[in-house]
Amino acid sequence: MQAHPAARPPLSQDPSARAYPQAADFTSRLTAVADAVEDFLADRLGDGLQPGEIARPPRLMQAMRHAVLGGGKRLRPFLAIETARMLGGAYPGALAAGAAVELVHCYSLVHDDLPAMDDDDLRRGKPTVHKAYDEATAILVGDALQTLAFEILADETWQPDARIRADLVLGLARASGLGGMVGGQLLDLGAEGRFGPANLDVEATLQLQAMKTGAILAHSVEAGTLVGGADAAGRAALLRYGRALGQAFQVADDILDREASSEAMGKRTGKDKDAGKATLVDRLGLDGARAECERLVGECEAALAPWGEAAQTLKDAARFTVARKT
Amino acid sequence: MQAHPAARPPLSQDPSARAYPQAADFTSRLTAVADAVEDFLADRLGDGLQPGEIARPPRLMQAMRHAVLGGGKRLRPFLAIETARMLGGAYPGALAAGAAVELVHCYSLVHDDLPAMDDDDLRRGKPTVHKAYDEATAILVGDALQTLAFEILADETWQPDARIRADLVLGLARASGLGGMVGGQLLDLGAEGRFGPANLDVEATLQLQAMKTGAILAHSVEAGTLVGGADAAGRAALLRYGRALGQAFQVADDILDREASSEAMGKRTGKDKDAGKATLVDRLGLDGARAECERLVGECEAALAPWGEAAQTLKDAARFTVARKT
Repeated sequence: MQAHPAARPPLSQDPSARAYPQAADFTSRLTAVADAVEDFLADRLGDGLQPGEIARPPRLMQAMRHAVLGGGKRLRPFLAIETARMLGGAYPGALAAGAAVELVHCYSLVHDDLPAMDDDDLRRGKPTVHKAYDEATAILVGDALQTLAFEILADETWQPDARIRADLVLGLARASGLGGMVGGQLLDLGAEGRFGPANLDVEATLQLQAMKTGAILAHSVEAGTLVGGADAAGRAALLRYGRALGQAFQVADDILDREASSEAMGKRTGKDKDAGKATLVDRLGLDGARAECERLVGECEAALAPWGEAAQTLKDAARFTVARKT
Repeated sequence: MQAHPAARPPLSQDPSARAYPQAADFTSRLTAVADAVEDFLADRLGDGLQPGEIARPPRLMQAMRHAVLGGGKRLRPFLAIETARMLGGAYPGALAAGAAVELVHCYSLVHDDLPAMDDDDLRRGKPTVHKAYDEATAILVGDALQTLAFEILADETWQPDARIRADLVLGLARASGLGGMVGGQLLDLGAEGRFGPANLDVEATLQLQAMKTGAILAHSVEAGTLVGGADAAGRAALLRYGRALGQAFQVADDILDREASSEAMGKRTGKDKDAGKATLVDRLGLDGARAECERLVGECEAALAPWGEAAQTLKDAARFTVARKT
């Protein structure tokens, strides 16, 4: 008899009792890992006090759950967890590392949606946090989600090796800070002409994208190598995979954006926010961009060659990244 | 011949060459430590790329420097550094730990000043970041400052011991996240009646203050104990010191606020944002609150007794905390 997931004790009470989710095919595995990440995050965002906490303000917790739970493909934790699994890393550490990356991703969405930034009212079909609550709460939700990511990484409950904990913090901080994700978001706002005239050529757009979305995707794979304990050569190969996957993700995004605007408008308009940016689609055309996606998926597969069949899930993840429709 | 500070090589090129700033008296030492923290932060916020960074957007770096440099007493790093010094901890690790706490303090000021939060135009006599730049930049500046704090803590350049690095990350995250500083700021906004009717009694105000400002002051001392390697008893005593100092800081703030509004208005008005909160001054009166400050300074001194004269600077810091005029 299988217990209902909600009836399981929190992972934190016995991390060692849990093992990687098993599934027969890629899509089922993606779902199973997403469910495990959801459980982990729901547990952390509950109302029970954690060590060192004075109180958990109900409004803040509610809004944090709104921002994090019930949505998304959880692609970043999937990459971290599947990389760690392939390398033989322990599951609790892989799950925590993946969840931390997801929290940083979620915090960036909450802040990017704010009126002063992209001013979006909907996210994954739900009101954004500042619409469902208010702007001040949304700012604080983003701040606290970022903090929680680093708190989880530094907690020995999930990862007994202190060096791995510190390296995960360092890697996530570098990928998501001023020289990565946050810097990329500022460049993206600049590309709209907010801070003065702007017209980004393809090279500048590629750099912006590498910072805004590529760095944290690549770090997701890096996190898996840290948890799994890859040697230098293995690590370098997997970082090549992570970077190529991040690039493929972005070209696929550019293609989706162009196709969506073509279908909807009968002509190129793109989103307003893309107005100031030339993308690879501008340089290569839609067919050329699709060929570039294929080339990058090939690069992902080549980087994974040393692991043979054990790397099938990561290969499928690269394919999934360029084939997704949202 | 003494080289001009600006001519020194960055600390990161040779951390071991630096030693704790020396000074004859408390005020000089406070200044010397603040200068060292300023140098460290200026170095980290320069335009040179750090490992893993793709680019440093000039506007972001400029706004981050605006937010961080040239201001403040640097009380939090002072507590971290002086605690570590007393315990015999190595200087580079103490300086980095102190600088990280200061970065979290600075990020919280940038976000608290935003129009959606406290809507302040001036900070330390300068325009706030969203006035000098814009709201989107200010949000991203705060985000990146938080990330940078954790990046510095996780970097072995300053702290060779991975367990200490991870423990510093964990301690700072717990003090500054949803159950500490950020949670306290949300409760503070709630006390204004933003999220519905609110009237905080003295106990609720004390809890809010313990979260919003107390937790990170106490963590500053905790950071020093981690760097300095206190045993369990020493750590417990110093955490008592840190908590009492945080409480003293807050009562002194309440007194300053009451005195300022009495002088300016001839009657109690307080800041708008304090309207919904009953403080210890309401319960004890001004004289009673001053006596409570004295009691808390006494508690600080008692906690430091085991270290005798070596604890003089930390004793002076407690006295300074209640005697400050801003």
